[in-house]
Amino acid sequence: MEEIEALWREARELSLGNSGGVERLDSPPTPLQFLRDFVSPNKPCVISNATLHWTALSSWSDDSYLTRTLSSAHVSVHLTPNGRADALVPLNSDELGSSSSSSLCFASAHVIRMPFPEALNLIVNPNSTKYVAYAQQQNDCFRSEYSALAPDCEAHIPWATEALGCLPEAVNLWIGNHLSETSFHKDHYENLYAVVSGEKHFLLLPPTDVHRMYICDYPAAHYSYSQDTGELTLEAEKPARYVPWCSVSPYPSPETKDTQMSKFPLYFNGPKPFECTVKAGEILYLPSMWFHHVRQSPDAGGRTIAINYWYDMQFDIKYAYFNFLQSIHCQSTHSRTLPETVSEDSDLESD
Amino acid sequence: MEEIEALWREARELSLGNSGGVERLDSPPTPLQFLRDFVSPNKPCVISNATLHWTALSSWSDDSYLTRTLSSAHVSVHLTPNGRADALVPLNSDELGSSSSSSLCFASAHVIRMPFPEALNLIVNPNSTKYVAYAQQQNDCFRSEYSALAPDCEAHIPWATEALGCLPEAVNLWIGNHLSETSFHKDHYENLYAVVSGEKHFLLLPPTDVHRMYICDYPAAHYSYSQDTGELTLEAEKPARYVPWCSVSPYPSPETKDTQMSKFPLYFNGPKPFECTVKAGEILYLPSMWFHHVRQSPDAGGRTIAINYWYDMQFDIKYAYFNFLQSIHCQSTHSRTLPETVSEDSDLESD
Repeated sequence: MEEIEALWREARELSLGNSGGVERLDSPPTPLQFLRDFVSPNKPCVISNATLHWTALSSWSDDSYLTRTLSSAHVSVHLTPNGRADALVPLNSDELGSSSSSSLCFASAHVIRMPFPEALNLIVNPNSTKYVAYAQQQNDCFRSEYSALAPDCEAHIPWATEALGCLPEAVNLWIGNHLSETSFHKDHYENLYAVVSGEKHFLLLPPTDVHRMYICDYPAAHYSYSQDTGELTLEAEKPARYVPWCSVSPYPSPETKDTQMSKFPLYFNGPKPFECTVKAGEILYLPSMWFHHVRQSPDAGGRTIAINYWYDMQFDIKYAYFNFLQSIHCQSTHSRTLPETVSEDSDLESD
Repeated sequence: MEEIEALWREARELSLGNSGGVERLDSPPTPLQFLRDFVSPNKPCVISNATLHWTALSSWSDDSYLTRTLSSAHVSVHLTPNGRADALVPLNSDELGSSSSSSLCFASAHVIRMPFPEALNLIVNPNSTKYVAYAQQQNDCFRSEYSALAPDCEAHIPWATEALGCLPEAVNLWIGNHLSETSFHKDHYENLYAVVSGEKHFLLLPPTDVHRMYICDYPAAHYSYSQDTGELTLEAEKPARYVPWCSVSPYPSPETKDTQMSKFPLYFNGPKPFECTVKAGEILYLPSMWFHHVRQSPDAGGRTIAINYWYDMQFDIKYAYFNFLQSIHCQSTHSRTLPETVSEDSDLESD
């Protein structure tokens, strides 16, 4: 563990900085600068004035523009009781056939397709339902479901495309309200995350901090919507399927803070995560393999809108080093420290 | 150890290749290609037709051109008994005050400055002396001692300079004969190694293979030249100073092969080193932190001439990962496996 903690420190001292802040650029970098100063060292940055020429920055603030342009579009909407999809929540043991009273599972949203105007109405009127709606689908949805919006922004980020030597593998649109939150996870992509309206609040941890996430296998479950009650119920997948996921929730409620801190000391007692708020017109470069947790603030119309561009990452020596680091993790600290059940005061559903 | 061996394999499978060969380019890459495909993934390559416009490629084959141009230059020459500077050789224990009969030390050359024509004469007539001369000094010597040759080649490698965003920190000239050999070591620089005449034969190991080098602290010693005898004698530094150095010599003589293989099984039983020959007109990109061993073949005039450009490396997440890997090494396999003495049949002076 001593060597691993030295790695956390050294990554910060050499390259990432100790302030907990993310480097900011006033304008887009050249492809060479972007590759040399950020992609190659696997270091995030926020770029201001990155999308000044996108008409989306003004037109998408207008609900009537969106509903008119997407009047005939059917879009994917993720429904959850509280805004948290792909999150850890308690599930009755009956569901899993285990003897413990309450176990955590990995809960996926109920996904439905509906006409866009209906989806937007659910998002901007969160109190009208017993669930939270988040229009998103990480399957290149911007280039399919939302193709009518293509003229309002760019099909790719030119300086990133030139630097990375390829077009984006997927472009995803996200329209949600202040309730939607994404739990800590990592992606195997170089990510250019452009906020169009509202603000996104990121917590970031470098891949060198993988132990601090307490990644563990959780049984998969999904929400299911009942037309009768208008409510979502959680159902375990059968046969059981297990998903490795980060155990740490970074904002525990006051009542559960002590429990969470003693369960996840490497997270709570280690270096602070990197923190940044990305505003409309700004782009976050979120490097491949970085753990990220996302919350959002809405615009005046109650929506947060963002597009992210996923570019293929290089599976190079950095990735080999990461896998080595994680393999050390499994043998030493993993099995001893991972929580298997949630105590009664768990706030995983409500923090 | 199992995880570390998996790292060696994965670095090769993902990025470096399993052939043991080094990727070859027919012409210089663009700065973006170089940065994206080689520097960022820390991957070597050999570039052909890289210096076609250098007049050095023809004029430096001519001894009289060199002695005329450098007639008034004084240059640094490294003298060793056998062509090996910065190598491990046995030293009598008396010198070190230890009780063992024969210990290895880290032996540096005797460095003298002499008029260039005299140095060249020593290099091309190796049988005229009891020592081997190698005109080299890794202190930016090309831009100082050899400045009269500057018009014959380039002050920097343009596509590398643009990619790395800086000019070379040092440019070194190397003029030697077939006897000179450089033992396994690594440098904290991005290295562009241009062969001008003759050939250089490299063995390369990625930084992920650090355990296979059996790096150990050796007492420093240096050769000292006696005018009386015309011979070099080895003297331990006093007070003692210790230099961490790779223990592995890759070409053991037939008699010592078994001993060497049993002492350094991780090297001899692991994946083969990457191997390449760099010819006149070609440039090797030798990535920072790669272990390299160098031998050379002479041109028709008996000389091998090369220039290397050292560019500052980025001390980023890759470097932090390397230090972490090396720290694991120290605790687990290092102390158990490192040789402290050399057996009588050691071939370290003669292989």
